Amino acid sequence: MYGTMQDFELRVPRLLDHAAREHGGREIVSRWADGTETRGDWAGIARDARKLAQALERLGLKPGDRVGTLAMNHAHHLAAWYGAIGMGGVIHTINPRLFDDQLVYIANHAEDRVLLYDRQFQPIVDRLRDRWTTIEHYVVMDGEGEGSFRALIDAEAGDYAWVEGAEREPCMLCYTSGTTGDPKGVLYTHRSSVIHALAGIQPAILNFSPRAVVLPIVPMFHAAAWGMPFAGAAAGAKFVFSASNDAAVLCELMNRERVTHSAGVPTVWLAMFGHIDATGESPRYLEQATIGGSAAPRAMIERIMGMGVEVKHLWGMTETSPIGTAGTPPPDWAAMSMDEKLDLVGKQGQAPFGIELRVVDDEGVEQPRDGVSSGRLQVRGPWVVQRYFKADADAVDADGWFDTGDVSVMHPDGTMQITDRAKDVIKSGGEWISSVELENAAIGCAGVAEAAAIGIAHPRWDERPLLLVVRKPGSDVTDSAVRDHLSKHVAKWWLPDAIVFVDSLPHTATGKLLKTALREQFKDYRLEAA
Amino acid sequence: MYGTMQDFELRVPRLLDHAAREHGGREIVSRWADGTETRGDWAGIARDARKLAQALERLGLKPGDRVGTLAMNHAHHLAAWYGAIGMGGVIHTINPRLFDDQLVYIANHAEDRVLLYDRQFQPIVDRLRDRWTTIEHYVVMDGEGEGSFRALIDAEAGDYAWVEGAEREPCMLCYTSGTTGDPKGVLYTHRSSVIHALAGIQPAILNFSPRAVVLPIVPMFHAAAWGMPFAGAAAGAKFVFSASNDAAVLCELMNRERVTHSAGVPTVWLAMFGHIDATGESPRYLEQATIGGSAAPRAMIERIMGMGVEVKHLWGMTETSPIGTAGTPPPDWAAMSMDEKLDLVGKQGQAPFGIELRVVDDEGVEQPRDGVSSGRLQVRGPWVVQRYFKADADAVDADGWFDTGDVSVMHPDGTMQITDRAKDVIKSGGEWISSVELENAAIGCAGVAEAAAIGIAHPRWDERPLLLVVRKPGSDVTDSAVRDHLSKHVAKWWLPDAIVFVDSLPHTATGKLLKTALREQFKDYRLEAA
Repeated sequence: MYGTMQDFELRVPRLLDHAAREHGGREIVSRWADGTETRGDWAGIARDARKLAQALERLGLKPGDRVGTLAMNHAHHLAAWYGAIGMGGVIHTINPRLFDDQLVYIANHAEDRVLLYDRQFQPIVDRLRDRWTTIEHYVVMDGEGEGSFRALIDAEAGDYAWVEGAEREPCMLCYTSGTTGDPKGVLYTHRSSVIHALAGIQPAILNFSPRAVVLPIVPMFHAAAWGMPFAGAAAGAKFVFSASNDAAVLCELMNRERVTHSAGVPTVWLAMFGHIDATGESPRYLEQATIGGSAAPRAMIERIMGMGVEVKHLWGMTETSPIGTAGTPPPDWAAMSMDEKLDLVGKQGQAPFGIELRVVDDEGVEQPRDGVSSGRLQVRGPWVVQRYFKADADAVDADGWFDTGDVSVMHPDGTMQITDRAKDVIKSGGEWISSVELENAAIGCAGVAEAAAIGIAHPRWDERPLLLVVRKPGSDVTDSAVRDHLSKHVAKWWLPDAIVFVDSLPHTATGKLLKTALREQFKDYRLEAA
Repeated sequence: MYGTMQDFELRVPRLLDHAAREHGGREIVSRWADGTETRGDWAGIARDARKLAQALERLGLKPGDRVGTLAMNHAHHLAAWYGAIGMGGVIHTINPRLFDDQLVYIANHAEDRVLLYDRQFQPIVDRLRDRWTTIEHYVVMDGEGEGSFRALIDAEAGDYAWVEGAEREPCMLCYTSGTTGDPKGVLYTHRSSVIHALAGIQPAILNFSPRAVVLPIVPMFHAAAWGMPFAGAAAGAKFVFSASNDAAVLCELMNRERVTHSAGVPTVWLAMFGHIDATGESPRYLEQATIGGSAAPRAMIERIMGMGVEVKHLWGMTETSPIGTAGTPPPDWAAMSMDEKLDLVGKQGQAPFGIELRVVDDEGVEQPRDGVSSGRLQVRGPWVVQRYFKADADAVDADGWFDTGDVSVMHPDGTMQITDRAKDVIKSGGEWISSVELENAAIGCAGVAEAAAIGIAHPRWDERPLLLVVRKPGSDVTDSAVRDHLSKHVAKWWLPDAIVFVDSLPHTATGKLLKTALREQFKDYRLEAA
């Protein structure tokens, strides 16, 4: 027996239809790479998206075909998402900061037929055009004139009806580039994206309503800007986009456009603090700062909270659309001390409805939620990957659990705390030492600019930590000074067996420590038995 | 081509699993009809629900079978919803305030096999038991001992796995009793209920987060308590249930349990105002008062807002699960005058993502959103009825539009305003006169306790308004006083052709004016041509 409610496929274009119909005049402001600004609205985004869908059909694209973008955040990028999806296609956001070989691999693997790119990435296009084997059409997203996005779509009437279809059809493709192996694509569906958007706007996560003014600092090529282009449409929010992440630019935009919600990685706040200290100008209308991508340091959280802004910590990954967990004030928030609040907000938050989490040991045994037992974090749910694009096998186990590669602890209240990446954890005598916690402790030592901890083979303990330290310019911080500092913050058996001062550390294209390179570099390093 | 995200059927038991797993210790407080209180939590609700599912299977129930309830709001009613649904059944909430013939019709039409009822409704059971032809098992929900809900479920171990199935299978049945014809059943699906719950918790509607403490004054047998038992689980909210709607009881509960969110019909606030005036005690922790069922008067909204509480006006009906629209502060809220705010909050709000609205004239032509053009309100979306239970034909037109029977105006900002029920509108010379607006204007006249406006056949204008007025005790308000008052609030051509003073007006079981009876009573009333 089936119920008798209406059928209604959860399709992404319905999000845009809703925004255009119910919040059509809500503004979409873009500050472009050349410093110019344009103001539009959701009704305009819908018009442009329909024109683009028409243009893509004229270029010969069919449902299921991929449309690549190499672009910052702006109104054309937003319209491109909805236009490509609206003609039944798949929008594929490419991260322009990747290395050439990755850019080549990704676009070819995705079989992108069109590439929409910002003028500032022309050098990438010039360099790789001959190596991209499937791209037939190149369109410049900013500016006007021949070959531009504007020219392409303004040749169309826009009298276009979205391609209808099943909600489990794909709408978006995002690649995740690890530190090893080829990038892997996650193919989001209309259904997963719409459910993710509906879940995302709830108070405990993005907290979007029609009065929200959102400045997504996180780029649309980073895990779909955490789903905000869809969530913002679902809620009818105003968007303020900036191609520049310069703190002065962002702060001026935030105050002029009365931005209530920002979202970005922790480092944008370091720059913002510098701007505030230098000018006395700070975001005056901000209500919520959503921070994700990596963990926000305690001092950063405290300073933002001190500005009267609610800090929401998000954890997730491309494979989880990306929202996995979010921190939100618990019922007893008002009664908590500042230290307790910072302890809590510094963790990764709780799973919303839809996401299931568990932590397992190396044998796959689920660990208790006791705030102590750590293990590999696994996740499942309607917006979690089942299988990578074009893969031959599922990325999940028989029960649907996806192994995140993170090492975590679950607290009794359901709060999840990332302690390390599984491949970076240092296994000493059967116990795990968090490389991330060692590094964070070391960074707190005066004179330390950056630090990396890796496991080195050890005759007695299997592995022991080696700490690599980059001094701040002009600093002469010593081995014993770092060691003294660490001993105040970590257990004695976590103290590194050796500290090596280096001039710099290797990073991935997205700015993460490239520990594979470090492990390779120090693979012959020998520690004494102790 | 399909995307490669995880399959995950949107099933209601997953809402409870989420609440029990992530917010298991969040309290569920019940104040029972006898004045006693019990405190439990989501983990306990989940245990009881599993036990009930087991007990229902032991009684021989199969997936798809209906389980009726005749009960107020309390923890056992909540567990009953999830338990019946968890064993694949359909929970059928019956309104104990209906007339006997309706109660008989509904339970027989639903083919309820079990009836779970509160002790206070024993007289109904005694009276109707012989006329209910399908109910095999009667269980008393409150109290203990033989035949009680507690005894039934505590005989089970609770080691039960929810019945799995498709998300378009039914989970809940609610009847809507109009003023004419037999009641009609709306059969909600797991899918419609879960999507409705996810949409419901957004800031613009219920605004539920894990820190919300919710007292649903609206009973669970009124349009599923506006979906709150599902939405509260999705958000991990605390519930405070009261079998009594006495204002002193509610106010004491609200302050002791620190209730942040209440939801009920406007009349509960009239009683609360009386309590506040008499005792000086008012709800101190309330953040949001959600009002639905009928329109809240302007003075009520103003007084609640004056208490620092956000007023959310909901419009909906059983056929829309029931959330259709919700009022929420717009972007320019801070700049609005109190009059502008009251004008806005007094309307029915905007459609959330998922709901589409339109207003059509008698020829089915869509009317502009100009704030003036009125017509029949139609709605469609994933939580809107397609066909009534056991009906032979759809309840919607070929394009999926469900005619709500309301007469509305759409404003340019998407705000919907109900002006009348379609069958109550008075059609004068091709123009529509709102009976509701006439009545509201009349009630504002000193000495008027209640008023009803109906259309009377008129030789020249087709229909003209007749106003029936009940005087307040001791009042001798006159025809000309009412007429003078009305002339300040409505257009001159809306003024009633006649005013008749009566001792009382007929009402439905749910307290609405029974205009069919009035129209019958006054069918021979004659108006002069003018």
